Amino acid sequence: MSNTYGNKFRVTTYGESHGPAVGAVIDGCPAGVALDMDAIRRQLERRRYGAPRQEGDEVEWLSGLKDGVTLGTPLAFLVRNEDARPDDYARLEHFFRPGHADYTYYIKYGYRDHRGGGRSSARETVCRVVAGAVAQQLMSEVTISTQYSSAGELPADDTVGGTVSCLIEGVPAGLGEPLFGKLNAQLAAAMMSIPSAIGFEMGAGFGAATMKGSEYIDRWSGGVGTENVTLTNHCGGIQGGISNGMPVEFRVAFHPVVSLPQPVECLHKDGHLETLTVGGRHDRYHIARAAVVVEAMAALCLINQL
Amino acid sequence: MSNTYGNKFRVTTYGESHGPAVGAVIDGCPAGVALDMDAIRRQLERRRYGAPRQEGDEVEWLSGLKDGVTLGTPLAFLVRNEDARPDDYARLEHFFRPGHADYTYYIKYGYRDHRGGGRSSARETVCRVVAGAVAQQLMSEVTISTQYSSAGELPADDTVGGTVSCLIEGVPAGLGEPLFGKLNAQLAAAMMSIPSAIGFEMGAGFGAATMKGSEYIDRWSGGVGTENVTLTNHCGGIQGGISNGMPVEFRVAFHPVVSLPQPVECLHKDGHLETLTVGGRHDRYHIARAAVVVEAMAALCLINQL
Amino acid sequence: MSNTYGNKFRVTTYGESHGPAVGAVIDGCPAGVALDMDAIRRQLERRRYGAPRQEGDEVEWLSGLKDGVTLGTPLAFLVRNEDARPDDYARLEHFFRPGHADYTYYIKYGYRDHRGGGRSSARETVCRVVAGAVAQQLMSEVTISTQYSSAGELPADDTVGGTVSCLIEGVPAGLGEPLFGKLNAQLAAAMMSIPSAIGFEMGAGFGAATMKGSEYIDRWSGGVGTENVTLTNHCGGIQGGISNGMPVEFRVAFHPVVSLPQPVECLHKDGHLETLTVGGRHDRYHIARAAVVVEAMAALCLINQL
Amino acid sequence: MSNTYGNKFRVTTYGESHGPAVGAVIDGCPAGVALDMDAIRRQLERRRYGAPRQEGDEVEWLSGLKDGVTLGTPLAFLVRNEDARPDDYARLEHFFRPGHADYTYYIKYGYRDHRGGGRSSARETVCRVVAGAVAQQLMSEVTISTQYSSAGELPADDTVGGTVSCLIEGVPAGLGEPLFGKLNAQLAAAMMSIPSAIGFEMGAGFGAATMKGSEYIDRWSGGVGTENVTLTNHCGGIQGGISNGMPVEFRVAFHPVVSLPQPVECLHKDGHLETLTVGGRHDRYHIARAAVVVEAMAALCLINQL
Repeated sequence: MSNTYGNKFRVTTYGESHGPAVGAVIDGCPAGVALDMDAIRRQLERRRYGAPRQEGDEVEWLSGLKDGVTLGTPLAFLVRNEDARPDDYARLEHFFRPGHADYTYYIKYGYRDHRGGGRSSARETVCRVVAGAVAQQLMSEVTISTQYSSAGELPADDTVGGTVSCLIEGVPAGLGEPLFGKLNAQLAAAMMSIPSAIGFEMGAGFGAATMKGSEYIDRWSGGVGTENVTLTNHCGGIQGGISNGMPVEFRVAFHPVVSLPQPVECLHKDGHLETLTVGGRHDRYHIARAAVVVEAMAALCLINQL
Repeated sequence: MSNTYGNKFRVTTYGESHGPAVGAVIDGCPAGVALDMDAIRRQLERRRYGAPRQEGDEVEWLSGLKDGVTLGTPLAFLVRNEDARPDDYARLEHFFRPGHADYTYYIKYGYRDHRGGGRSSARETVCRVVAGAVAQQLMSEVTISTQYSSAGELPADDTVGGTVSCLIEGVPAGLGEPLFGKLNAQLAAAMMSIPSAIGFEMGAGFGAATMKGSEYIDRWSGGVGTENVTLTNHCGGIQGGISNGMPVEFRVAFHPVVSLPQPVECLHKDGHLETLTVGGRHDRYHIARAAVVVEAMAALCLINQL
Repeated sequence: MSNTYGNKFRVTTYGESHGPAVGAVIDGCPAGVALDMDAIRRQLERRRYGAPRQEGDEVEWLSGLKDGVTLGTPLAFLVRNEDARPDDYARLEHFFRPGHADYTYYIKYGYRDHRGGGRSSARETVCRVVAGAVAQQLMSEVTISTQYSSAGELPADDTVGGTVSCLIEGVPAGLGEPLFGKLNAQLAAAMMSIPSAIGFEMGAGFGAATMKGSEYIDRWSGGVGTENVTLTNHCGGIQGGISNGMPVEFRVAFHPVVSLPQPVECLHKDGHLETLTVGGRHDRYHIARAAVVVEAMAALCLINQL
Repeated sequence: MSNTYGNKFRVTTYGESHGPAVGAVIDGCPAGVALDMDAIRRQLERRRYGAPRQEGDEVEWLSGLKDGVTLGTPLAFLVRNEDARPDDYARLEHFFRPGHADYTYYIKYGYRDHRGGGRSSARETVCRVVAGAVAQQLMSEVTISTQYSSAGELPADDTVGGTVSCLIEGVPAGLGEPLFGKLNAQLAAAMMSIPSAIGFEMGAGFGAATMKGSEYIDRWSGGVGTENVTLTNHCGGIQGGISNGMPVEFRVAFHPVVSLPQPVECLHKDGHLETLTVGGRHDRYHIARAAVVVEAMAALCLINQL
């Protein structure tokens, strides 16, 4: 089930980074919604910002729409891969790049598509962004926004990590399920499924670990069912796994891009090491693009709770 | 599905903190395993360490065993609640304690069991610990250990948060699934489902956000399929969502216990605030007990990948 | 997942026929329902009618209820096994009875609980009947009734098969899902999961295979959204997998009880055959009891669609 | 989840009969299999035999293949709809044809694609046949064959129903799960999900309802783990829900095509009846084509058990 996200609004994605296309089937979209294709295009543009690979990212809709309005049947779309240059990767066929999923895919599947990461490539996030943009249109009362930060000055010789803070306003109280379906647990899984994500925290997060209880607890503002039910929001809008009506706030840490511009030691299948150029480049916009995927996954997570 | 964890080794828990019993059904345990009941008891004792409520926590097995050996059929057990004192909670019937799930359960279900938290009580972790201890016995090659830290000196007037670091040795390379079933995503969800968990990070975690790529990437040690495939372990033993054979390392942040010993402002259903004593106490062992639940959830997460 | 039925109203059953107890956890029952325990008892009595094994079948509720009213949390119950006589089965330890699941369980699990069938015993239907009786109480507008027929005169020397016809009145139009979640497909799976079930048909069923289209199609009575939308009901109340508001009608065929009173040839693990007495008896009420389980499974199937 | 079939070899289908394309994503196909595209084409040709609508049915593969060999990633394909004639259906926009899913879709979704059935059209079975043909290639030891029968002489004025008998040879003993995952229950659900299916029976089926136990039970041939473990096969190769190594045998009843050539009374949304020509025709090959879909669903059902 690893290529499907969600139970109600189910997104099943497909496509290798260097195959003919990527795409997805969305099962669970209600009928009668006029999709705003421009809004989808805008998110795709934001996702592409400063990307090493420039695609047109034209979305072709295969089903689920009639005159741009959803039919309630599965929405299927594809985005053709235009810029596939498998030749660039030929030299790396028998090598595992450090930091990449090359090695683990090889161990798991006894096989690896060396052409740019296959399913582990960031290319697959196109599908998340399209599906997420559809989901956002179904939740007009909810606003998802992100802010990101990475090293103030990009190092001359390398890539950097960073964090994305996400603020979701308009989340109704009562989303999430007790025990194993907690909203914070589902957000954590959604975020950690994004390539390069390495940490997740709600509200006060790791900072809460050094707080006293009297500092941590969010005091009631007075009033039941109000939007600002507490005076602070250390819990990030979720108590006991269920949203309390306050904005949902969380932060995701991303490690640096692992395709470095400089030569790196690669591991050959036979076990020896060799220093190779793997085709990385200075990438200033890694975290900016990750923020768009954070928004998409936040939308997909939430719509599965409504 | 919120009361069930896992797809292969499925644990369905039941029981309110102040009802007759808590328990679970485990579906997916193989046949022919002689369960070490002492090992289960030891984990329950560690979980109970310094707990405000003292139960005998005697596990009664209802099915799935013959002469202590698993039959391959569902394992069912119950643990009776011995120390239920619903009267203590009568005063709080119409109030929401700050920091607790009282308010969100009320909003979600239009109803709340004011007797000590119901399903949101830490009492339910008994079931996780028993099931986790069973899971650990099925993975003899895997060692799960935790270390925890909280404020060096417990404040005189209050509770504290803390962090639990978990180290899992002996994890075979190849666990986890691409895209949405990544091992790190599943660990994140498992950990964030623990009461009071508020942050999760793999390996270098939030620290990786300020690293350069050249610092972050784990260099190959040379050799394929070895236990120490990299020289460092910033990724926490998982690349592209799949274990690489290195130890799996992560850290979980817990916020302080929200039942404070001093009087706190509670929210009445009619919206007014009132300062009440909610029955909290100085709790030095909150994080020590959480560590046992971290181990249990780590075991349940892993066994569902094997 | 084979011990769990349903997605919304999830019933996870446990217990071997000769272990300490059978029982189930029901996840998904709404809060605030006062359960009619007498109605549950009556169904258990009907299920026990003329049964070879007489149990008290006292239901002990472990969670999910307060003063007989559901809490919205998982309902858990157990029914102790009182009449376990494993000794009766000792002689059969290394033999496979004909017609039973002894052989297939042994091949699948490399192991078999020879004490009366284990999980394959009809004993497990106690749990279905309790859960089904709860489900029926949540659908007061729906009436489920059965009629059964078996050989008019019971043969002096043996057991017989039979059929159960089920009529469900009050089913709202619109239940069931297109493609793979069709209501008829789900009813078929529910019914074929009952021990001894060997055939299933909706409405005109196998008879429809020899009809002309003009005979088969159910003519509209006129009026949209009415209870009697068609003049006939050859489709059994389901069109395109979705209920149309007419009564849902289906029939289930059951093969004869395979525990024969006379000695039968059993297969030894080493491959040789031996004629043994397996403890069967003339059973006049097999189909009468099956009808109660048909009702229970119909209720469980429907409530997962509402 | 109604557009997804299976848990291990998951097929998610999409496409309306009069939209741009139909297709599916198959998640769970192992890597390294050279697909026989001719075998897939042959099944599509058999499915199209005598069909009212003639499509080229060219399969375009979007992902999961490199040089015709599976990558282990999701297999995605589409088949363009070439013969969409929505105009033919314009007259029927506000009418419900008798016997069709028009009415139930309208009631369920408050909306209906009157252009030929949308998702309820037999057009969607293209996807089942492609996916089933892939599945068959992964089970070289299993042979699935069907025989069908319908009215010996086709009535001059109408359509007919019929039955399809399916024989699956080479099924290993041990497939299927106890309780709710019985192989017969899963086959029943798979078959009843096929358009027009109205009855299902294993082995002796409804005939077993009038047998005595001594007639019904399949006698052991002697020998454990052999292919012909019993002398007869009244149970259809499944005991206690688990295959016993004998051929799996079942029969599916199909009602007649409900698009009649002669004018029929249709129900208008406002409730009045009107006699209209709905575009049906004499269809001699309905059951022949259904047999191909039975084979496909049998393959999809089995591969999810292996």
